[in-house]
Amino acid sequence: MASYKLLLLPGDGIGPEVAAGMQVVLEALKETGLATFETETDLVGGCALDAHGSPLADATLQRAKDADAILLGAVGGPKWAGVAYENRPEAGLLRLRKELDLFANLRPAICYPALAEASALKRELVEGLDIMIVRELTGGVYFGEPKEITVLKDGSKRAVDTQVYTTAEIERIAHVAFDLAGKRSGRVASAEKHNVMKSGVLWKEVVTKVHAEHYADLQLEHILADNCAMQLVRRPKQFDVLVTDNLFGDVLSDIAAMLTGSLGMLPSASLGAVDAGGLRRALYEPVHGSAPDIAGQDKANPIAMIGSLAMCLRYSFGLGDAADALDGAITDALSGGARTADIAGEGTNPIGTRAMAAAVADAL
Amino acid sequence: MASYKLLLLPGDGIGPEVAAGMQVVLEALKETGLATFETETDLVGGCALDAHGSPLADATLQRAKDADAILLGAVGGPKWAGVAYENRPEAGLLRLRKELDLFANLRPAICYPALAEASALKRELVEGLDIMIVRELTGGVYFGEPKEITVLKDGSKRAVDTQVYTTAEIERIAHVAFDLAGKRSGRVASAEKHNVMKSGVLWKEVVTKVHAEHYADLQLEHILADNCAMQLVRRPKQFDVLVTDNLFGDVLSDIAAMLTGSLGMLPSASLGAVDAGGLRRALYEPVHGSAPDIAGQDKANPIAMIGSLAMCLRYSFGLGDAADALDGAITDALSGGARTADIAGEGTNPIGTRAMAAAVADAL
Ligand SMILES: CC(C)[C@H](C(=O)O)[C@@H](O)C(=O)O
Ligand SMILES: CC(C)[C@H](C(=O)O)[C@@H](O)C(=O)O
Repeated sequence: MASYKLLLLPGDGIGPEVAAGMQVVLEALKETGLATFETETDLVGGCALDAHGSPLADATLQRAKDADAILLGAVGGPKWAGVAYENRPEAGLLRLRKELDLFANLRPAICYPALAEASALKRELVEGLDIMIVRELTGGVYFGEPKEITVLKDGSKRAVDTQVYTTAEIERIAHVAFDLAGKRSGRVASAEKHNVMKSGVLWKEVVTKVHAEHYADLQLEHILADNCAMQLVRRPKQFDVLVTDNLFGDVLSDIAAMLTGSLGMLPSASLGAVDAGGLRRALYEPVHGSAPDIAGQDKANPIAMIGSLAMCLRYSFGLGDAADALDGAITDALSGGARTADIAGEGTNPIGTRAMAAAVADAL
Repeated sequence: MASYKLLLLPGDGIGPEVAAGMQVVLEALKETGLATFETETDLVGGCALDAHGSPLADATLQRAKDADAILLGAVGGPKWAGVAYENRPEAGLLRLRKELDLFANLRPAICYPALAEASALKRELVEGLDIMIVRELTGGVYFGEPKEITVLKDGSKRAVDTQVYTTAEIERIAHVAFDLAGKRSGRVASAEKHNVMKSGVLWKEVVTKVHAEHYADLQLEHILADNCAMQLVRRPKQFDVLVTDNLFGDVLSDIAAMLTGSLGMLPSASLGAVDAGGLRRALYEPVHGSAPDIAGQDKANPIAMIGSLAMCLRYSFGLGDAADALDGAITDALSGGARTADIAGEGTNPIGTRAMAAAVADAL
């Protein structure tokens, strides 16, 4: 039986609660005898800063490198609003992404039938929605240099961020998008601002080339990022796979997530390149944040975190059947009426984080 | 009677049609004896490139500088997809914005009651929506240097765009936002990514300072741009004035526009600083684009362009009453049942661009 080493980084806010919920499901999974999972737990984000003076200790980074996969809860909160830029909780997450070269961020935006009513959009526009956003995660304005604030002679300041993309960076994320599309509807939309940004010009050029050379049988559409945001609101089902850069991906994936009405339900995968041995580094985390306002109250929805485990089974360990079973258990728990507060309709009685996790584990 | 010099730049695609519609209304306005308007017409965008080899001829720029206000239709279209980056139609518009220092882009997102049903969002979420987006328009990644694509030794490429903001640039746009908020609900939301971008850090710092020093009686909220995009979809009415940078403003204002269900109805103003004589340069244009697919078919909705004239009366000429009358005429025409194809519900018979403009002129 295969054995996998998981590094669990619960993080801040509701992170520890949803991670605990996920672990209940992981235990249930172990009982099925499918695989063995060895779990280590460590700190990231604000809690790591409090404990070690850094939002990602070097020892934790090393553990992350040694693990077969990482499961992360969430980072950040008002408690650390005043800390130096270099020490903010998010810096821990960004360092993980960069150091492990997790360049491909997969964010499925799925509208669960039971929850279509929870969307701000009209039901018919979102029912059955299933978009896969492929966001470049280790380049662009997030990491480009210079990135600095300088003080001018008159005492005023000048801030600079730099968006950089190379051919190679765009090529590899384009491959991820097209490979995924090949297993889905075969349609890719690529979003940039080539009418304003040189990185957009290169983005469009490279994606076009990768398509023509390797995936001519798939359908490629170029769309301006501002129009893409509009179209996501107007007619989201026109999209299947949507590939875009780090910053546009940050915004567009959040829009897509919100459309589904199920923000607390959406997982994500951040993948590295496949190495010579066929392995790839990977981190899985919910799309939602640390939600400090409800932290510690057994209110958070653990499904995004549990779904992240399902993505981990699928993408890191090739356990497609187990992933399907877990996704099915989530659907079953929902169909059975289990609802945390964020997805409970009017007049229904919400259950807590623990009860929701138990419902999924039972369904499994 | 005051006399004003207007420069009309119809541009490409549906630009000429909606501009013609606007002129019908302008004639009606002249008849009211309110003011005299002298109109010159010139080229911008693709049509200017075709005629002069540049999307904005120097002579046109000079005319723009000499005018009291500019009314622009739209630029761009597939015809010019292959032209060099420097010559693309959008470059004409961007040059106008930059050379005239039109740093404050005001984009009202208003949901017309008659059209609430046309929104992708549920009626109760958008009915009565009235957001004023204040977008910085002459800074950020649109104009920062370096902005280039270089070829590396191995033949691959590297593209760079640079986001730059100075204290002064942020201060002046913050003042515009707070001044507007003071005449509205008194609430400003400021969107950036201070958790990732140094320009976001400076943005937040400067907006906070301007607020504390000059507008402490108003309410200021800082929101991350990705969360802002989400919140616009989830609960748009939580926003009143929303101030943000050039690139986030591009995306967020398009989302807000789409929410209203009335993209073809939304005007915008791009304002310069008030000079010593109390005058300010200004350009007014619809939020919608050149819509080449319906160009030349008398199908386009001229209301955004007519509304841009109303904004011109209000912001450039201080003719608030005339602007109100014009806005009222738009509402009346809609209440009277006039609908172009983009806003016609099922089973209703849409009218053309000319008929819609006539309906507004009549209502005036
Ligand atoms: C926490 C933050 C740095 C992060 C980002 O901007 O990438 C988050 O918004 C995300 O989308 O994962
Ligand atoms: C046409 C284009 C250059 C422009 C922009 O990106 O600013 C447009 O999208 C807008 O919002 O006015």
